[in-house]
Amino acid sequence: MRIVLDAMGTDAAPSPEVEGALMALRDAGEEVEIVLVGDESVIRAEMAKHADVPTRLHLRHAPDRVTAADSPATVVRRKPESSIVVGLRMQKDGEADAFVSAGSTGAVMAASLFTLRPLPGVERPPVGTLLPTARDLCLLLDAGANIDCKPQHLVQFAHLGSVYAKDTMERENPRVGLLNIGEEPGKGNDLTIETFELLSAAQGINFIGNIEGRDIVEGQCDVIVCDGFVGNVLLKFYESVAGYIVNLLRSELDGVEDGLVDLEHVFRVLDYAEYGGAPLLGLGGVSIICHGESPPKAIRNALSVAARAVRSDLVKHSAEDLQL
Amino acid sequence: MRIVLDAMGTDAAPSPEVEGALMALRDAGEEVEIVLVGDESVIRAEMAKHADVPTRLHLRHAPDRVTAADSPATVVRRKPESSIVVGLRMQKDGEADAFVSAGSTGAVMAASLFTLRPLPGVERPPVGTLLPTARDLCLLLDAGANIDCKPQHLVQFAHLGSVYAKDTMERENPRVGLLNIGEEPGKGNDLTIETFELLSAAQGINFIGNIEGRDIVEGQCDVIVCDGFVGNVLLKFYESVAGYIVNLLRSELDGVEDGLVDLEHVFRVLDYAEYGGAPLLGLGGVSIICHGESPPKAIRNALSVAARAVRSDLVKHSAEDLQL
Repeated sequence: MRIVLDAMGTDAAPSPEVEGALMALRDAGEEVEIVLVGDESVIRAEMAKHADVPTRLHLRHAPDRVTAADSPATVVRRKPESSIVVGLRMQKDGEADAFVSAGSTGAVMAASLFTLRPLPGVERPPVGTLLPTARDLCLLLDAGANIDCKPQHLVQFAHLGSVYAKDTMERENPRVGLLNIGEEPGKGNDLTIETFELLSAAQGINFIGNIEGRDIVEGQCDVIVCDGFVGNVLLKFYESVAGYIVNLLRSELDGVEDGLVDLEHVFRVLDYAEYGGAPLLGLGGVSIICHGESPPKAIRNALSVAARAVRSDLVKHSAEDLQL
Repeated sequence: MRIVLDAMGTDAAPSPEVEGALMALRDAGEEVEIVLVGDESVIRAEMAKHADVPTRLHLRHAPDRVTAADSPATVVRRKPESSIVVGLRMQKDGEADAFVSAGSTGAVMAASLFTLRPLPGVERPPVGTLLPTARDLCLLLDAGANIDCKPQHLVQFAHLGSVYAKDTMERENPRVGLLNIGEEPGKGNDLTIETFELLSAAQGINFIGNIEGRDIVEGQCDVIVCDGFVGNVLLKFYESVAGYIVNLLRSELDGVEDGLVDLEHVFRVLDYAEYGGAPLLGLGGVSIICHGESPPKAIRNALSVAARAVRSDLVKHSAEDLQL
């Protein structure tokens, strides 16, 4: 299996990418190979800082780089030799099985959509994100790829999310919830009222009903579907509020002896870097987006998620599920 | 000034109501009087537990009580002698200046709307909620009264929220943000894109632009406008996530000597009870809704917010602002 890693993605590239790739290769089985894509000389210089670079770490030169100034929609056409486009093209050409990038979210989404193409029947490929809950991680989708969704889009998200949860999150019969403003059927806005009916009738989805904002952290669901506007607001809010509350507590903890309080543990629970990146779903390939501020650990985890997706045949299962 | 307090609202009524009213009267000036509305014998029995009940605490009998089983829309017609309807009618009849209730949110909203009527020009009276941020409290509206909003509704929320922030939150020139999924103009869904244009052109609103989910806790705004679906999901999520994170930390703090960590302080910052209730805005009167689980402190604070709203002439200012 070959996973392509955009080496020019993070704000501190290529250092976190190279270190994350080395960590991932140490963890992974012998069958996993990683290809760093980007400016060859820059990557080589970074690799030279590490001893024992395994032969399973490869390099593919891509002279160009996508920046925040690039319009996502034009990247494939205007920057065909960028690390994002070259990396995704390898998967399209059968040279690789998955793509991971911490570059511009919009650019990775647009280039993935264009290069890997939606699976037959998928109208709006969603992006998923993993939220920490009191029980286990929960996949929220769509996290921002599609706004102004229609009910049938949310039903597709439910299908794609269920397959993803089975294949990469070890959930046997994933419970799917619809994010809404009341528990009873009939509650909500036009979108959620109609989606509720469609999900209740849908085959192959373990739909458990409406989920309110307050239920999310309880972890009753494996998959929560919502339109990309709500999902994006919620995701960004969660990331920031966790930091806010931990900071509040940190100021209270001044003076407490080190070691008595394992703040590290709390941070880990709240740390998005732990969970790897955000998967793009419903495409004819695997593409995972990481934060621009990803540390090596986050890159390693995203690579590990990508490997799980390839190993479990996520794309094939998604396509099969959509044909049912 | 007379504030009517529904004595039958909380889950533990009338105990938190009576205690909260007594606390409020101790804090407030001599001009503030409170009228407890509900079952006279039950309230009298509760009052008998307290010494020194001031003469500024009155009682108005209302034999009936709204329960969770009542459909909010039918309460005014079917339960005209309930504490909610009797209490609101007193304001309509000029016997009182404000109404506070911890009863069924839907019933209080519907009965307030019917009894106090929307101000001229107000199409969708919103409900506001106060969110704690790193700087100061921020008013989010609509928090759930109106879903599937139109752009002009959000502009009205901005007007009503600005007046409320000036009159009751001591903000001189309230900064208004539009909750959205990107900072730049042109980002968002159909609703927010159009609302952005209207707010940019609106007179008398200090519109500072789009606010993302991650900006909320930073406290850049005094007022955040959004449709009631998003607002409700966010509000309920915030309430629950604060509890979740504090619990995470609490389990880490086992074994830390008491007194070293002022968890109480952190809880206070995150405690909705501190901020009183959720105001219904855009009506021809003052109506404030509290949680059903409100402790006496929350009731006291809601009464104090109600007193501020009356003292500052909130309703008159709102009506004037809408006529500009």
